[in-house]
Order: sequence, then C-alpha cells, then structure tokens
Amino acid sequence: MTWIKVFSPATIGNIGPGFDVLGLAVKHLGDVVEARKIDKPEVVITDIQSPMTLSKNAAENTAGIAAAEVLRILKIKTGVELKIKKGMPSGSGLGSSAASACAAAYATNYVYGNQLSQEELILPATKAEEFVSGDFFADNTAPCILGGATLTRSSLPLDVTKIGSIANLCIVLVTPEIVVLTKEARDILPKQVNMRDFVFNMANSCLITAAFAKNDYSLFARSLNDKIVEPARANLIKGFYEVKQNALLAGADGMTISGSGPTVFAITDQPQKARFIEDAMLRTFQRHDIKAFSLITEVDNEGTRLVEF
Amino acid sequence: MTWIKVFSPATIGNIGPGFDVLGLAVKHLGDVVEARKIDKPEVVITDIQSPMTLSKNAAENTAGIAAAEVLRILKIKTGVELKIKKGMPSGSGLGSSAASACAAAYATNYVYGNQLSQEELILPATKAEEFVSGDFFADNTAPCILGGATLTRSSLPLDVTKIGSIANLCIVLVTPEIVVLTKEARDILPKQVNMRDFVFNMANSCLITAAFAKNDYSLFARSLNDKIVEPARANLIKGFYEVKQNALLAGADGMTISGSGPTVFAITDQPQKARFIEDAMLRTFQRHDIKAFSLITEVDNEGTRLVEF
Repeated sequence: MTWIKVFSPATIGNIGPGFDVLGLAVKHLGDVVEARKIDKPEVVITDIQSPMTLSKNAAENTAGIAAAEVLRILKIKTGVELKIKKGMPSGSGLGSSAASACAAAYATNYVYGNQLSQEELILPATKAEEFVSGDFFADNTAPCILGGATLTRSSLPLDVTKIGSIANLCIVLVTPEIVVLTKEARDILPKQVNMRDFVFNMANSCLITAAFAKNDYSLFARSLNDKIVEPARANLIKGFYEVKQNALLAGADGMTISGSGPTVFAITDQPQKARFIEDAMLRTFQRHDIKAFSLITEVDNEGTRLVEF
Repeated sequence: MTWIKVFSPATIGNIGPGFDVLGLAVKHLGDVVEARKIDKPEVVITDIQSPMTLSKNAAENTAGIAAAEVLRILKIKTGVELKIKKGMPSGSGLGSSAASACAAAYATNYVYGNQLSQEELILPATKAEEFVSGDFFADNTAPCILGGATLTRSSLPLDVTKIGSIANLCIVLVTPEIVVLTKEARDILPKQVNMRDFVFNMANSCLITAAFAKNDYSLFARSLNDKIVEPARANLIKGFYEVKQNALLAGADGMTISGSGPTVFAITDQPQKARFIEDAMLRTFQRHDIKAFSLITEVDNEGTRLVEF
C-alpha cells in the first residue's frame, strides 16, 4: 500500500472582530500527515513527531477522529494508518488541532479515491475539533481546508464560504510562552454586548470580508478592530496592550489576538516594516520576561493539499 | 444661468442583518432635483412637487441643508436655486430624505465646477440627514450617492466603501400604508444583544458583503436573516410575519424590513417568480385592511447622477 503525504496550514481564527465567523490560513507553519490504506477496519496512528505529548490512541487524537469520520462517511470497511508530524505548538491559537484533523481527513479521503470534495471534508474535521474543544466551530477547519480567508455563516447546519485572499498582506505572528486554555478564553467572554459594540464589530468584519473578496489591503488595514472579544481576552495575555502599542508604533496597521490566543498577529503591506514590527513585539514580551516564538508570513491560499515526499 | 437635473435613487438601509452598516440603492424610484447658480449668497427652493407637504424653507429641508453644506465646503460666495420633485413617499424606510439631500448636494457641486468627488458628497448629504433623523448615519446617503451596495464602517469619522452589485437580483418592494416614525423604530431596539445573536447577525452581514463583492446571488439568498432588529421592528408593522411567510411560500429567498420600515422587501433571482411574490405580499397586507404600494426592481449600480431634461 502506497504512502501519501498531506500538509495543512496554521490558521488565524476570528481575524480580529469576526468572532466565530472569520478565519484565515497562513503559510510556513502547519502539520503533515502521512497515510496509507490498511486491511484492518480501523485507524492506527503509528508515529507522532511533536514537541508535546499527544495520544497515539486514534479515538483520542483529532487526526484519528477525523480519519474515522471520513471512513464512516465513505462506508469503507477497511482502515488507514497515519503518521503525524506536528509543525506548530498546540494551545497556541493557531488551529493546531484543526490542522491535524484536516490533514488526516484529506489524506484518508485521498487514499480511498478522493470521493469527497474539499468542502465536504470540513464536516468530519470539525467533528474532530469538537472532541478537543467541546464546541462545534469551523473557524479554523474551514480556512485550513479551503485556504485563504473563509466565512462560517452557520455551524449547524455547516455553511462555509471561501472569501478570497490579499496578495500583499504581511502577517507578523508572535506566540508568547503563556498558557491560555480554550475553555478559559471562552468563559471570559461577555454574555451580552451593547448595541454600539455589536454594530462596530459587525461593520469591521464586513469590511474585512470586502477586503479579502476584493484583494484590497487598504480595506483590511483599517478594519482590524475588535471591541468585544479582544478587551476580554487581552487579560489572559500579559503585556498585551504594550505589545500592541509597540507593534503600531513600529508601523503595523493593526494587531490583535489569533483565535483564543496566546498568539497575537500584526499586519502590514510593507515587507521591510515587518522585521521592525516583529522585533518590537518580541522585545516587549521580553521586557515582561516572556519568551516568544515569531514568524513573518502571508496568506496560504491553497489550504490542505498533497505534498511530495 | 443654466439649469441642470440630478436623479437620486431610493435606498434600502441595513439590508436585513447589517443594522447601520449596509445599504443598497434600487432602480425605478427616486427624487429629482433641478439646480442653477444664483448671484445671491443663499439656497432658495422655488418649487417642490410632492404628495406630502414639505417646507420650502431651505434651512428646514434636507435638500436645502445639503446644498448649503456643499456651498460652505467649496467656500462659494454666491448661491443656488433648487426645484425638487419627490418620487417616493417620505417616512417609508426607503431613504426619501437621503435622496433629496444627495441629489441637492450633487447638483450644487455640479453647477459649481464639480470640485468634490462622489465620496466627498456623502458628508454634506449625511449632515442634512442628521437634521431630520437626529442621527448621523450614512446607511442611506452612502448607497444613494455611490450606487450598489455600500458598507459604512464608521460614521465619525465617516468611512464608507462601495461593495459592488448583484446583477440578477430581483427586489420586491412593498410599502404598506402604516406610519412608522424613525425615532420610534430606534427606541424599540434592544440596548443589549446576546453573544449568539451578535455572531449570527455578523455572520449573515459578512456573507451579504461577500455576495455583493462577488456578484453572487446564491450567497445573498441564504443570508437575509436578522435576529436583532427585525424581531423588534416587526411589531411596528401589522401582519409582518404573515406577509413574510407568504412571500417565502411564493418563492422568495428572504424578506425583511427596509431601513426603519414600514417598507418590506423580498428577494429572488427569478423574474417570473417576482410577480407571484409581490401578489402574495400585497394580498396579505390587504387581508389586514392595509393598503400597500409595490414595485419590482433591481440594484441601481450608478447612484446619484446627472440626467437629461
């Protein structure tokens, strides 16, 4: 049985104001899953390369759960063997569990004749996500599978649309070594929002949508503003407002939290500025005695895909 | 001094979920303003053709106020004479006052050498709107000037973007003879919205934005859903839910309130269905002893413009 190899990109959930709605895939960071058919009717994970300890029990691993879901949908009576190589830390707000789930769903579908479309792979991958996060949300799985920026109009029934991309968008990702639990990041959110803030976040999210639909950085540059989720979650990231202020002083057009954090990201359309922004953000975390990992990246418009060995 | 003639289209504020953010210009309904320079340093309204009584005092009429604002911005020491022909009822939720203001602003700018861009005309027209509504919102003036669907990210400072159009969108407008005061329609709104409804309205508004940016009716067809403003304002329109139900039964893909009402509008991409939808809506209002005016129309992608005499 031949092995195939699939890559899934890291993703930025929410894209600022678009809580649970918008998502974006980014380059140079992601998970790789290798897969091959096996005769036994099961999903077997035989190898995981990861800095964190992850379960090889397929029923407890998002990759394993997504693969099993695809086999079930396709009514396949045999199984699949998976090897997982994590390319990013989990719990960082970059869609780590979504990436493994998407790569495994894609790989399993591929070795069994590619019967499901990319859109159809979002459902099994999101079910796997639900296992780890407790919530059925596609704001990481949708961009991870489809690439570019995506819009989840509804999770039940799943209704996802690829919006597009912005060619000259530079993204400065900084992941501080802070633990933020997704559950805690959800519990800290307000239950009610006032009318004015609702209109503000909606307007900015609509402009982000227009920016990606029209490939227009200038629209995105003025719309990365969030009055609802960022003020709550900033409390979980030590030094957040100082890092943001210094990113903006260094020339960024906006900076906010990726997904439930602790990763933050800043935007610019000028690659020469990106290094200065990155440096300012890292130094500010350092001043708070927080180590951080950083990466200058751009939109991954392809999403989950087959790669060469 | 030569007369010129300007047309401004009717507009649908909110486009369903996009309260205070989205707006849309429609064809076959609008106001006409004729204008010419005069030597006296003032705005004079010498004729109003309208089914309603409107003040010819330029300081109390949106057309007069918008014209004066334009003269002030251009630092013109002479004046302008205006004749107004109302093409739609006021207080109907179709941006009647915005249309007069936009046409007068455009006309005044035109007779004085067209120094302001279309975008720059939105500010004086919106100031005139503020006089009648008490609120500074561009969700009618922006689409009225620019045409198509527009997005107001912020009113102060004014930040407006033209999103685009949907070529095969049929709009069934029905204006029942019910009085809805804009102030009452604002006061009835909730002060707080719950998180789930905020996400719902935002997601649908983002999809409407994507639909107009991509000229894709199918996206619009599933996103005309509002859980925040419609449930409150529906109480001001007798028979609303029955009219909506019958519009949907007749084949509409959605129906909601235009601006602060009482006009409602339904959507389809099939012109042959539009007559049935219109008939169903009119008959339902009739059953409640409410007379109604109706029109089948489409997107006006031009906005405010010079017309031939």
